[in-house]
Amino acid sequence: MTTATTSATSTTKALMARRSATLGPHSPTFYAEPLQLVSGEGVWLRGADGVEYLDAYNNVPHVGHCNPVVVEAIAAQAARLNIHTRYVHETVVEYAEALLGTFAPPLDKVFFTNSGSEANELALRMARQHTGSTGVLVSDFSYHGNTTSLAVLTTGLTVRERLGSHVRALRIPDLAADPRPEETVLAIALNEARAAIASLVASGHGVSALLFDPLFSTEGLPCVPAGYVEGVAGLVRSAGGLVIADEVQSGFGRTGTRLWGHELFGITPELVTLGKPMGNGHPLGAVVTTSGLLEEFGSANLYFNTFAGNPVSAAAGAAVLREMADRELRAGALEVGDRARALLEKLAAAHPSVTTVRGTGLFFGLEFADAGGHPDAGLTGRVVEDLRRRGVLISRVGRHDNVLKIRPPLVFGHDHLTVLVDRLAASLDALEAA
Amino acid sequence: MTTATTSATSTTKALMARRSATLGPHSPTFYAEPLQLVSGEGVWLRGADGVEYLDAYNNVPHVGHCNPVVVEAIAAQAARLNIHTRYVHETVVEYAEALLGTFAPPLDKVFFTNSGSEANELALRMARQHTGSTGVLVSDFSYHGNTTSLAVLTTGLTVRERLGSHVRALRIPDLAADPRPEETVLAIALNEARAAIASLVASGHGVSALLFDPLFSTEGLPCVPAGYVEGVAGLVRSAGGLVIADEVQSGFGRTGTRLWGHELFGITPELVTLGKPMGNGHPLGAVVTTSGLLEEFGSANLYFNTFAGNPVSAAAGAAVLREMADRELRAGALEVGDRARALLEKLAAAHPSVTTVRGTGLFFGLEFADAGGHPDAGLTGRVVEDLRRRGVLISRVGRHDNVLKIRPPLVFGHDHLTVLVDRLAASLDALEAA
Repeated sequence: MTTATTSATSTTKALMARRSATLGPHSPTFYAEPLQLVSGEGVWLRGADGVEYLDAYNNVPHVGHCNPVVVEAIAAQAARLNIHTRYVHETVVEYAEALLGTFAPPLDKVFFTNSGSEANELALRMARQHTGSTGVLVSDFSYHGNTTSLAVLTTGLTVRERLGSHVRALRIPDLAADPRPEETVLAIALNEARAAIASLVASGHGVSALLFDPLFSTEGLPCVPAGYVEGVAGLVRSAGGLVIADEVQSGFGRTGTRLWGHELFGITPELVTLGKPMGNGHPLGAVVTTSGLLEEFGSANLYFNTFAGNPVSAAAGAAVLREMADRELRAGALEVGDRARALLEKLAAAHPSVTTVRGTGLFFGLEFADAGGHPDAGLTGRVVEDLRRRGVLISRVGRHDNVLKIRPPLVFGHDHLTVLVDRLAASLDALEAA
Repeated sequence: MTTATTSATSTTKALMARRSATLGPHSPTFYAEPLQLVSGEGVWLRGADGVEYLDAYNNVPHVGHCNPVVVEAIAAQAARLNIHTRYVHETVVEYAEALLGTFAPPLDKVFFTNSGSEANELALRMARQHTGSTGVLVSDFSYHGNTTSLAVLTTGLTVRERLGSHVRALRIPDLAADPRPEETVLAIALNEARAAIASLVASGHGVSALLFDPLFSTEGLPCVPAGYVEGVAGLVRSAGGLVIADEVQSGFGRTGTRLWGHELFGITPELVTLGKPMGNGHPLGAVVTTSGLLEEFGSANLYFNTFAGNPVSAAAGAAVLREMADRELRAGALEVGDRARALLEKLAAAHPSVTTVRGTGLFFGLEFADAGGHPDAGLTGRVVEDLRRRGVLISRVGRHDNVLKIRPPLVFGHDHLTVLVDRLAASLDALEAA
């Protein structure tokens, strides 16, 4: 066993050297010693070390790693036809119909893209052309993609670009971290949004859009006051702006109760952007919008995307929707998620380092603090590393890097949850005692 | 036969109505009556009308529609593991090594992306961060992608954004359309570049990059004077800017003589962007660059791209390179391309409407003019439509829409060429007589 592990480690080290020589030393990896993977199935991933890891983190393999229905759909369509949309084919239309069937009116049109970044790029272009303004409201710890337009509004990770003069970053209110009454928190947060909008108007940028993740995932899953999202959306619309819901993390049933994160609130965005889980790993994204906005943009711009909407990508996306329906994965996420929350609350009660259990559906954040009540990034990092040694993959998030991010593939079942909670409890027992 | 065609036409019309209801009425299609496709193999595409069409246009299915080696690579890897690059896997490293092995030093690092748009976005971000400038030189009839940063430098198709104040568009000199001596044409064109650079510097934007397609495909394949590209590149570098070669159309052996379009000239760009043919239709792009530029960008920005570099995309890209090598497709493109040029020249000599045969390798432009010598977009359009009726797929390009664009999959052989030229000759005979 020791020999096998040593050999696996040296294999990975050799691979890392070749990786660094080609992709460069800054291509990000998880873990102090990066994990080399060789295969996946369902919620399990096999490492080059021979270990089977429970995947409690990855949302891209939404209907399970190497889901056979998706794999077969990709393989069959790739063998039959793969072409861009300037020729007409049935697959993309069927997929568009299936996808749009999950949205409430007036969201009845779709532009396909190859990624969430491309989707947010396009949504912003559309919002700016519609409003004639450039100003954008985002949260003060968010990430929406890697292009220039998105880099200048990135607040949640390191980019060299400065925040654009047309961008205002809102602190998202968090009832779990704020002792004041909910109505006070709400009133203050809405006033902040009002001030940001006034500042955009005064500076001449105007307001083109509010761009937000309905779960505020990168922010660490704050507990937002009731009426906050609706309130900011209303203020933005009063100023002439549009609402863009970035559903790259919150979409496709992640919240359990609804298919789309924005349905948690009493609003319908003008633009919804999709990505990560959409093709179960196949590069696929989209902007879902209204006929009016599509007409305005489509008539004034020749928008063509070579790969987007190709029949293989469409077949992958359609297979994901079919799997979700056939296996009732949204309802499953709700059921497993409810039990997960109960177990995690129990675990938190038994472990003083866990201060808060955040989240909804099958997306949780466990917040860690030290004895003085301060965010404990160090411990959170040790939990992540220790869980790897126990065969569980997980990561962390939030502005203080102290929120354990539990966001498994949607096929995560009760038995997987038991494995996760048992190993997490063992890990916390060991680390709190250390 | 008439019944079958009528039925196929009504099927396509019904599909077009559903397409319009979901993707919208502006999603571009080819042909007055859009062509519905159902399958593909090699250089052949089967329509819903039962007709087998020779594909003389599409460069994305580079190693052939539904190439079995690529399809098998995608299917096998999708069934084994598909994950992002924060975990380490061998496939992406092996592919990066194979890809970088085709570039001359100092181009030894790669960022993978999901499209040519994402690649050009990233290359521009890198160039701007490196230079601290924003100014860009492009051609005055070009297209490099569909994001905001690329829309503001788009000159070759309709976008609502105005040309950025930081953009200068150069008219690419064309010896085939300019009776003056080559050295005169060159001197005037370089003076224009000098003036554009001076204007960027004077306006405070400075020069971040020259962004160009080495074949100037969208421009209609102009015959560029020797030393022009080298000259502009030299001027840009003297002003502190970088050279970005957009190899989305010119790369992967399209020119026949070399694998990369920029190798036609005596320059090595600092940044090379890849797209379309890279994954034979699988969404895949890249920025190839130097260790120095990667280090500068990678150390200052957390650049992560969820889908890019996943093992399935890497397997698709690697299979394309293997197929190119195993079947000696670059050399084949040169050989078939040489014969194609000879046959097209002969065809041009016999048809007064064809004034010029442009191109290199397996990429040709046939320029059409009327009796008065004026660009004949109408006739060019009729040739495209007529060739469809004869079972050949083709399109057109150029600022006057009068250049027939012949750019087949690289597996286009002598027998396919014969079919193409025979049908093209028949089409021209018929249309010139009409």
